[in-house]
Amino acid sequence: MSTRRLEAFSDGVFAIAATLLILNVAVTGLKPLDRELIDIWPSYAAYAIAFLTIGVVWANHHTVIDQCKHVNRLFLMLNVIFLMLVAFFPFPTRLLAENITTGGARAAAIAYGVTGALTAVMFNVIWLYAARGGRLLRHDVDSRVVEGITRSYLPGPLIYLAATLLALVNPILSAAVFAFVPVFYVVESSFFSRGD
Amino acid sequence: MSTRRLEAFSDGVFAIAATLLILNVAVTGLKPLDRELIDIWPSYAAYAIAFLTIGVVWANHHTVIDQCKHVNRLFLMLNVIFLMLVAFFPFPTRLLAENITTGGARAAAIAYGVTGALTAVMFNVIWLYAARGGRLLRHDVDSRVVEGITRSYLPGPLIYLAATLLALVNPILSAAVFAFVPVFYVVESSFFSRGD
Amino acid sequence: MSTRRLEAFSDGVFAIAATLLILNVAVTGLKPLDRELIDIWPSYAAYAIAFLTIGVVWANHHTVIDQCKHVNRLFLMLNVIFLMLVAFFPFPTRLLAENITTGGARAAAIAYGVTGALTAVMFNVIWLYAARGGRLLRHDVDSRVVEGITRSYLPGPLIYLAATLLALVNPILSAAVFAFVPVFYVVESSFFSRGD
Amino acid sequence: MSTRRLEAFSDGVFAIAATLLILNVAVTGLKPLDRELIDIWPSYAAYAIAFLTIGVVWANHHTVIDQCKHVNRLFLMLNVIFLMLVAFFPFPTRLLAENITTGGARAAAIAYGVTGALTAVMFNVIWLYAARGGRLLRHDVDSRVVEGITRSYLPGPLIYLAATLLALVNPILSAAVFAFVPVFYVVESSFFSRGD
Repeated sequence: MSTRRLEAFSDGVFAIAATLLILNVAVTGLKPLDRELIDIWPSYAAYAIAFLTIGVVWANHHTVIDQCKHVNRLFLMLNVIFLMLVAFFPFPTRLLAENITTGGARAAAIAYGVTGALTAVMFNVIWLYAARGGRLLRHDVDSRVVEGITRSYLPGPLIYLAATLLALVNPILSAAVFAFVPVFYVVESSFFSRGD
Repeated sequence: MSTRRLEAFSDGVFAIAATLLILNVAVTGLKPLDRELIDIWPSYAAYAIAFLTIGVVWANHHTVIDQCKHVNRLFLMLNVIFLMLVAFFPFPTRLLAENITTGGARAAAIAYGVTGALTAVMFNVIWLYAARGGRLLRHDVDSRVVEGITRSYLPGPLIYLAATLLALVNPILSAAVFAFVPVFYVVESSFFSRGD
Repeated sequence: MSTRRLEAFSDGVFAIAATLLILNVAVTGLKPLDRELIDIWPSYAAYAIAFLTIGVVWANHHTVIDQCKHVNRLFLMLNVIFLMLVAFFPFPTRLLAENITTGGARAAAIAYGVTGALTAVMFNVIWLYAARGGRLLRHDVDSRVVEGITRSYLPGPLIYLAATLLALVNPILSAAVFAFVPVFYVVESSFFSRGD
Repeated sequence: MSTRRLEAFSDGVFAIAATLLILNVAVTGLKPLDRELIDIWPSYAAYAIAFLTIGVVWANHHTVIDQCKHVNRLFLMLNVIFLMLVAFFPFPTRLLAENITTGGARAAAIAYGVTGALTAVMFNVIWLYAARGGRLLRHDVDSRVVEGITRSYLPGPLIYLAATLLALVNPILSAAVFAFVPVFYVVESSFFSRGD
């Protein structure tokens, strides 16, 4: 099987999951609009964090599929499970935006962190499935690139797990870690790109 | 007519129908958040079941179109009717999630089962229309593959019909069957793939 | 400019507009679920009518672009205006579903009819712009096919205009015409396809 | 990296952001439907303005990517930030539609203007990043076309900034400027296209 429709379906889910995040940004109309537009700043922050996170995951998924020559049925199914987690992001993002300044902050941060950790785990699963023994990889793939990808994805689950545990003590700090992950990646890319 | 835009439109509908399912996962804010995030477990289960089901149907649709050399106007229209059923899933999925523990469980399970049965029927219709006498198939298609596809899709309508009837007696058991179908397919794929 | 990204954007809008229609199908929870699932039959009918209509328009758009060799900036803009009307359908569809049995039926049918008429007008505009003097057409295009397309699209605005005027007298009959248009097309396709 | 999946993801976000705008067009049911369909005219206007604006931005994005031979990681990330702003449009569009005739008009117009200005800034950023020293451009690109693109995009941020400042004095006039931008572009395209 070629990777073409896998990419079309995946790109669709990434694009929709990211774009649906805007539905979480809303005003109640209970306060004057200028005041409320300032008060809902956590929903802007949550929108930006989740959109960038999905964008970074999309770029990484791009990299993975670029190394693959073909896919098989099991890979399709693993990818569907992975996308199921990506498409789940709008829910914990809304929770985080609405509860970060309330008593529900801890539960919201845990929900976001668990979603992030499971997504990162499944990302490693699809990559390792494709890469083990070169199962689905192109023949001309560079083994250093493969090892580089493996190394760069492994910390993901640990970071989200740590941030989730951190939420038990301090949900605000936990949210800061969630924000840091995609921002770090964007900044790091800007240096990495120079050598392209 | 080539199959390219048929795939683009279909992949779009599959991706959106799957991603919209997340709108069914929501909290009311009437209870403490940590408590409510546990209480809404049926909505997580319904999300996973429906997402995997749409993913499996997408993978099968992929297989069908891969066997086709070209399509005609009637096939386009049959495919639109099929997609209309796929895109209907978010509605009965929400019903199932919200009513599985209430008196509406039976009606919700029937609504889900009828949607599943009609989708499975239309899937057989588009495949049999394409395959009969090799009408739309590639010339180099393997007749054993064609027969294998026909055999593997025929049970679909019967399983969903049986699960719908089961809902009259026991909606919980009926929902378990709905969950079993995509999980079975994912597990079965993992063995089938070994020979790829 | 090639037609590739025009198709990608258009297919995206068609797929999303069709799939968003499901958000119009909802229950209030004010009545027992089995009862309410029967009472909301107009929303199922409206969903099916609008989904099939968008599907038929998509198939026709497919045909138009297939005749084009390239596109220009003005065509892109006309196509955006056309898609703006296609993406408007979920709104009058919901109005029709919610009001067909109430005093608002006339206003709802007029809203649907005006949307349909404007969409049909813009469809003719983009086709005639592309076809006049062969401006954007492929060089090997068959002039009989071009004339056939022109003839088959011209009645669209008139049918929706007539149905809109009919709504002033009898909104139910008007809705029946809206339902008839895509069903006629699907049935007609099944005969037309035989000669493919 | 090729530009293919960048286009697929971008076209998806553009198409979804534009199509989601229809969710902002709604009736309350508190007045007779025929009356309310007239009273909500600002939501039709806002829908049209925002849809055309996104369509114009999409067409310009199309032009930018057409000049690129390849992309790099940093460009992907800049593009994700740009798309994050495009996908934000449904929110200020709804604010504008709901508040243009109320005391919240100023705040709504500022929200729309800031979104427009930031989008225009990021558009210039991705173009200038791609074009500077021909970094990502095709080798056969015409330097006059490159300069023409640079010149035509530079006024964007200034126009939206001016319209945002204008909102402090007169939000209605500010909204008229927002409407003028895409309409100007569509009309201008119709002349520009003649020479194609």
